[in-house]
Amino acid sequence: MHKPINEHFCESWVNGNPASTVSISDRGLAYGDGVFETIRVNETPVLFSQHLSRLMRGLAALDIPFDRTIFEGEVSRYLQHRQHGVLKIIVTRGVGGRGYASLPNSEPNRILSWHPLPEYPATYFSNGVSVYACKTVLGQNPSLAGIKHLNRLEQVLARNEWGQGNYQEGIVCDFRGNVVEAVFSNLWVVNDGCLMTPRLDMSGVAGVMREWLLEELPKRGVKVKEVTLSSSDLLSVDEIFLSNSVFGIWPVKQYNGASWSPGVITTLCQALVQDLLFDI
Amino acid sequence: MHKPINEHFCESWVNGNPASTVSISDRGLAYGDGVFETIRVNETPVLFSQHLSRLMRGLAALDIPFDRTIFEGEVSRYLQHRQHGVLKIIVTRGVGGRGYASLPNSEPNRILSWHPLPEYPATYFSNGVSVYACKTVLGQNPSLAGIKHLNRLEQVLARNEWGQGNYQEGIVCDFRGNVVEAVFSNLWVVNDGCLMTPRLDMSGVAGVMREWLLEELPKRGVKVKEVTLSSSDLLSVDEIFLSNSVFGIWPVKQYNGASWSPGVITTLCQALVQDLLFDI
Repeated sequence: MHKPINEHFCESWVNGNPASTVSISDRGLAYGDGVFETIRVNETPVLFSQHLSRLMRGLAALDIPFDRTIFEGEVSRYLQHRQHGVLKIIVTRGVGGRGYASLPNSEPNRILSWHPLPEYPATYFSNGVSVYACKTVLGQNPSLAGIKHLNRLEQVLARNEWGQGNYQEGIVCDFRGNVVEAVFSNLWVVNDGCLMTPRLDMSGVAGVMREWLLEELPKRGVKVKEVTLSSSDLLSVDEIFLSNSVFGIWPVKQYNGASWSPGVITTLCQALVQDLLFDI
Repeated sequence: MHKPINEHFCESWVNGNPASTVSISDRGLAYGDGVFETIRVNETPVLFSQHLSRLMRGLAALDIPFDRTIFEGEVSRYLQHRQHGVLKIIVTRGVGGRGYASLPNSEPNRILSWHPLPEYPATYFSNGVSVYACKTVLGQNPSLAGIKHLNRLEQVLARNEWGQGNYQEGIVCDFRGNVVEAVFSNLWVVNDGCLMTPRLDMSGVAGVMREWLLEELPKRGVKVKEVTLSSSDLLSVDEIFLSNSVFGIWPVKQYNGASWSPGVITTLCQALVQDLLFDI
């Protein structure tokens, strides 16, 4: 009756077991009531502890109780025999009723899936990428800002703005016209030797790579600040680049009519991240 | 090998077939990339055409192509032999990859589920409900405002603010301090004989019952306006009530220290909606 399951051929696990579906009553589907992580794996998951910490912060903000230690063991088992790829984690509040109120006894659902490393042209790294100026505006909500939660329609709308067009990323602003981030990466600029990235206290996703750079760069003598930056400020900066824990760092070569070549601080950050992310 | 499926015992359908799960790759789960409806069924679905129209407007706003006529037939078949309850519809963009970009060939997924009518005490209708003043603030996004999409974390957070406390609903504001709606219903106030409801061009869900009242009341000689209303304005209004297509109309008896008894226009609206929603 039962087909034997070889878990090395099953791409995904749900709650520790090979599976590829969730209940239609899962609150992740009903309300986006959960969080996710995408982690680059080079034999071991890169910045794993930082990814798990962000996952836990997100779950705490949503008041979803979760055992980090047990989950860490589960992820380690999932990653046995998996070498190079992208691990996606989704944790939802679990199955719920028809209303917004959480059921007191609901148990979080844990979904692990495995994806090939995206193959980006080497020029994205060496020369930079063309970035679209998205019209989709990010809402502001201090309770949800920074969290990598499952309510990502703004990113879907923003990404669909340039469709198949010749852009590799897009920059999104809040309704005040301040830049927040790129659609699937964080934004950095350099002016007068100071590296800056937009504050994420009202909207945006606080990327793990962004957190790592904020922590590591000062140790290496680079001044770093979180700032408020208007989209017109962006056009006159000395350097501009994007960070993400899967692709690392891409310089921006074109945005909204302005153009740049990879600068000194961009190149320094790339060297640091290259050591972290890639087998070289 | 196959257990025969009696579809009268299977609560839910996915894409026209009895099923209770969706793929973990469904973009509804990954990003909340879809819309939903909850429809009161009294032998027939109440305001069905209006619900379907709102569903279609939401799908169009998200650029998800969808065939209304075929779906209408599917819902009719699902509702055969179902008498009184709540029909929940979820439509997602379908299965997708790991990125925000929609796959060009993805097919929407259609999920139908059946739920008992909630049993509310009769006093909610006759005397009114106590309403909590939520601190959770709604983000503003004109591209998503009004749509009943699957990004509902703000509602989850707002609902969880009063937990098991003695409130039946909560009122949510935008970051400017203007009231938008209640957590799972729309808000109405009466001042000097004029009925008013907050504009929903920047946030909120444009309820089907709200739309119906906006259309029907002027025909019956009641002046109705969409307005901007601060949360302090709310405390001095003559009447205040909530509308929703499952429970109909609840007067508000208490909110933020103020109290009311059901007023004349509230009672008139209740009579109209009573005829529409209930078997009496």
